[in-house]
Amino acid sequence: MDVRAAVAYEAGKPLVIETVQLEGPKAGEVLVEIKATGICHTDKYTLSGADPEGLFPAILGHEGAGIVVDVGPGVTSLKKGDHVIPLYTPECRQCKSCLSRKTNLCTSIRATQGKGLMPDGSSRFSIGGKPILHYMGCSTFSNYTVLPEIALAKIREDAPFDKVCYIGCGVTTGLGAVIYTAKVEPGANVVVFGLGGIGLNVIQGARIAGADMIVGVDLNPEREALARKFGLTHFVNPKDVGADLVPHLVELTKGGADYSFECIGNTDVMRQALECCHRGWGVSVVIGVAAAGKEISTRPFQLVTGRVWKGSAFGGARGRTDVPRIVDWYMDGKINIDDLITHILPLEKINDGFDLMTRGESIRSVVVY
Amino acid sequence: MDVRAAVAYEAGKPLVIETVQLEGPKAGEVLVEIKATGICHTDKYTLSGADPEGLFPAILGHEGAGIVVDVGPGVTSLKKGDHVIPLYTPECRQCKSCLSRKTNLCTSIRATQGKGLMPDGSSRFSIGGKPILHYMGCSTFSNYTVLPEIALAKIREDAPFDKVCYIGCGVTTGLGAVIYTAKVEPGANVVVFGLGGIGLNVIQGARIAGADMIVGVDLNPEREALARKFGLTHFVNPKDVGADLVPHLVELTKGGADYSFECIGNTDVMRQALECCHRGWGVSVVIGVAAAGKEISTRPFQLVTGRVWKGSAFGGARGRTDVPRIVDWYMDGKINIDDLITHILPLEKINDGFDLMTRGESIRSVVVY
Repeated sequence: MDVRAAVAYEAGKPLVIETVQLEGPKAGEVLVEIKATGICHTDKYTLSGADPEGLFPAILGHEGAGIVVDVGPGVTSLKKGDHVIPLYTPECRQCKSCLSRKTNLCTSIRATQGKGLMPDGSSRFSIGGKPILHYMGCSTFSNYTVLPEIALAKIREDAPFDKVCYIGCGVTTGLGAVIYTAKVEPGANVVVFGLGGIGLNVIQGARIAGADMIVGVDLNPEREALARKFGLTHFVNPKDVGADLVPHLVELTKGGADYSFECIGNTDVMRQALECCHRGWGVSVVIGVAAAGKEISTRPFQLVTGRVWKGSAFGGARGRTDVPRIVDWYMDGKINIDDLITHILPLEKINDGFDLMTRGESIRSVVVY
Repeated sequence: MDVRAAVAYEAGKPLVIETVQLEGPKAGEVLVEIKATGICHTDKYTLSGADPEGLFPAILGHEGAGIVVDVGPGVTSLKKGDHVIPLYTPECRQCKSCLSRKTNLCTSIRATQGKGLMPDGSSRFSIGGKPILHYMGCSTFSNYTVLPEIALAKIREDAPFDKVCYIGCGVTTGLGAVIYTAKVEPGANVVVFGLGGIGLNVIQGARIAGADMIVGVDLNPEREALARKFGLTHFVNPKDVGADLVPHLVELTKGGADYSFECIGNTDVMRQALECCHRGWGVSVVIGVAAAGKEISTRPFQLVTGRVWKGSAFGGARGRTDVPRIVDWYMDGKINIDDLITHILPLEKINDGFDLMTRGESIRSVVVY
């Protein structure tokens, strides 16, 4: 079938809106009509060419929501008409990782997904017979896409696509890092570095988890007001405290953060996030994606005296199990997504969404088909 | 009173056996006759001058066992005749750290202990009226010493001093890192870097915790036989696998270690220990003390994909609560200490104990008074 997609032909160039041929779903696969998709920093990172694993030509996009149009042979958990969120972290419930009960990082289709292909080793997208690659197993910058059944979360039908698409990445990444990875408990003191889309979702996660003090650190003072709406209790601008940021945060939190979160992707900030943690038990969670080749460092004394350094991908959430619950939380008014979606665009304007992100003007832009 | 002690007058010089004056216990303090003391790498590190926090002149030693001779005013939990193990990590059960239930790193007397002084800010040791400093709050290289009540674990009276003194540091550090810090569970795969005294105690901790695979990594092939006695199931000599050590360990453990332990103090090995952990959940525990100024590094991707980097001091054990139980384990034959104590020396030969350690000929030398 012919579909309409924004194609990334090469690194560093704008996306091109094209008519693309999409094959129907094979065994275990599902055809989804994408109704809305967020534009995420990870799409931008890949498009920029900085991602060493980025492949072209491809159809980017990994933060969508839509409706099942058709299912391939053997698909049992989804049927035509189901509302779904595509999952770049699938949940097969069969592999060593899924069965470990210790991680959300399902490995069942990792090898082919990393190559931009479906699990059978081929692409469903093409233009004039030449294959176009999938991206993160999702390719939501197309109004129709094909995904494996295990990479789709079934959600309630009254949830608005243009809001809950954000649960496909940003919301779950921030919220989940607090709830599933760090397991923040009531009364905890939390420090969040970077008050963009991820950081704001960390903040509302910390609020839901019952944190006492929720400290946000950002160079942009305009982020404070919005962050307060999400649960921030203290704002710190590093420009105001300079080199003394870590001791300042330790003092502010009366000994250090019980939990800290790095939501920027800056390895120097990751170090600060660890070192502002409380001696004896502070846990620092890396969420941001650092530039290729960058490394984190610290004195091992930081760990020996009880700080813990960990990371989170997709918020530690199991896509098919946890994403539908987060959709419920949004529908119940437990979490705020509306204030984070600052721009709605048609597919034709998708490059404007990337520009808004580059200029720091948007929290999240959503493309509506 | 006059006591007999090995005095560290300055960095890099041998200890000198001296008659030292010891003041009696003040409020909250206890006078202990030390019956035996181990010689630990940390004593050597401080004596070498490499420890930036090392102070001289001081009476080193922190791995002892002895008998209470006298108690100062207000001491309620100990009386004359009690058998005790001095604790360089005290347990006041009152401070924020003790009450957190999340750490063993009691902070109640940290400031003065770090300065080589008792909690009232003075030393009990002197020669000719000139003060000699305490060390790690213990100073077990003296046949009598004074400690705060909160820095003594009361132990059973049938336990032999020349064996259980080792529980005052090395045994608990290794065993505890497995049991209290990492919380290794039955069926886990464990990799231990460095098969010295700490590493061998990590191995027996992993055996007690029910680990399936216990892999030891050491450059010295002679360590294999002893390690097998403690529970080692696989021995890997880095010389045999070279630069491919991490992939070799990942393959051997069928995907990576569930838990790894660094027992050397080498920051390059700390990185290997983290990176040989299983994607999604592997936990690496730093136990070894790195040289001053050395830093650990890795790509944050290692954390984001689910590995956890933490550390352990005194094995995460609460001294007064957990040390008596570990003494019971020794008395019940649950753990082996006898095979780790390779040399027994009189105080006069204490410098020989340091030489044995330097040459790698001892696992643990114990001074018996």
